[in-house]
Amino acid sequence: MHNVVATVIAAASSVNLRKGLAELGSGLAYGLAALGPGIGIGIIFGQAVSAIARQPETAGAVRSLAFIGFALAEALALIGFVVFVLLKYTG
Amino acid sequence: MHNVVATVIAAASSVNLRKGLAELGSGLAYGLAALGPGIGIGIIFGQAVSAIARQPETAGAVRSLAFIGFALAEALALIGFVVFVLLKYTG
Amino acid sequence: MHNVVATVIAAASSVNLRKGLAELGSGLAYGLAALGPGIGIGIIFGQAVSAIARQPETAGAVRSLAFIGFALAEALALIGFVVFVLLKYTG
Amino acid sequence: MHNVVATVIAAASSVNLRKGLAELGSGLAYGLAALGPGIGIGIIFGQAVSAIARQPETAGAVRSLAFIGFALAEALALIGFVVFVLLKYTG
Amino acid sequence: MHNVVATVIAAASSVNLRKGLAELGSGLAYGLAALGPGIGIGIIFGQAVSAIARQPETAGAVRSLAFIGFALAEALALIGFVVFVLLKYTG
Repeated sequence: MHNVVATVIAAASSVNLRKGLAELGSGLAYGLAALGPGIGIGIIFGQAVSAIARQPETAGAVRSLAFIGFALAEALALIGFVVFVLLKYTG
Repeated sequence: MHNVVATVIAAASSVNLRKGLAELGSGLAYGLAALGPGIGIGIIFGQAVSAIARQPETAGAVRSLAFIGFALAEALALIGFVVFVLLKYTG
Repeated sequence: MHNVVATVIAAASSVNLRKGLAELGSGLAYGLAALGPGIGIGIIFGQAVSAIARQPETAGAVRSLAFIGFALAEALALIGFVVFVLLKYTG
Repeated sequence: MHNVVATVIAAASSVNLRKGLAELGSGLAYGLAALGPGIGIGIIFGQAVSAIARQPETAGAVRSLAFIGFALAEALALIGFVVFVLLKYTG
Repeated sequence: MHNVVATVIAAASSVNLRKGLAELGSGLAYGLAALGPGIGIGIIFGQAVSAIARQPETAGAVRSLAFIGFALAEALALIGFVVFVLLKYTG
């Protein structure tokens, strides 16, 4: 009887190791996926700020393109968040 | 009888270790694959914003080339997402 | 009786390994997620500072766009903090 | 009696492994969280120095925006220090 | 009697593993925390040198802002040293 319990526990133990490795991977996935867009969004708005100061009359077009670029770069980090959720909460 | 159960459990345990390492790799794959395009898309739209402000009359050509560049850089991250799905969900 | 205690302890032990790996991942998640926005916010305010010095008359528009860009980049790091909390404090 | 001691020790041992992994993660969290703002603050003050030399008459506006940008970037590293404290000193 | 010695040794061993992981994290913490400010301080003084050469009459203002920026970036690495001391010398 004890042996059955022991084997069941051993199985649960290896499941925990797997979950731990998956959680390590999930943290790395979001962190790395947020790294690039963080720099990219900075470059986009940095250039937008500079453009608006030099040619204030084009501020509308600059602002709209900057927000489109931001949304497209941000999407990469949000997919990273989806990867984090999939790795952490699904089998 | 117990020994048979024990070996089956031991096999399951090593399968779990393998799955855990694969999930760690899948998180790293998407995270790293999103890092580069995140910076790259930022550079593309940063320059596009700057170009539209300086030469507003070329806004159409600038915008279309920026979107083509975006799509090609984004494709790298999406392939990273495919790698993540293949590593996590297939044997 | 002792064997039951031993198996329960063994199970707790593998839970601890899993928690440790999850905590390692949670630290990496926030650290990496803060890396990109740290550089990005620097680029945004660096360009804003430069723009305000060159065209002081556009300081209002520059400042408001710089703060919008800051908020959007900072959001990536704050999501990283959420990932840290989820990995550390939830099962 | 000895067995009870042994199991208690084994439990303490796995707690130590978990603490060690959490401490590794806490060090990585602060280190990585300080990396980005370190570069970002450099960019902000580098541009501020350059702007003050070129347009000394705008030194006041430049200096105040540079300090605002510095505070916002530094905040990311300080949150990283909070993450370090949470990972190291809380269960 | 031997068993008691064995358990005491096992306990000491897991404490050593924990200390080792914490020391690994402490080394990474300072190393990474020094990386960013190392680049950032380089950017600040690089721009300051360039600014002083172009506008020597503003050398005083440039120099003082460069030293303020240096101190603020350096602080990040010094907090990294505090993290190193806390991880290595405190329980």
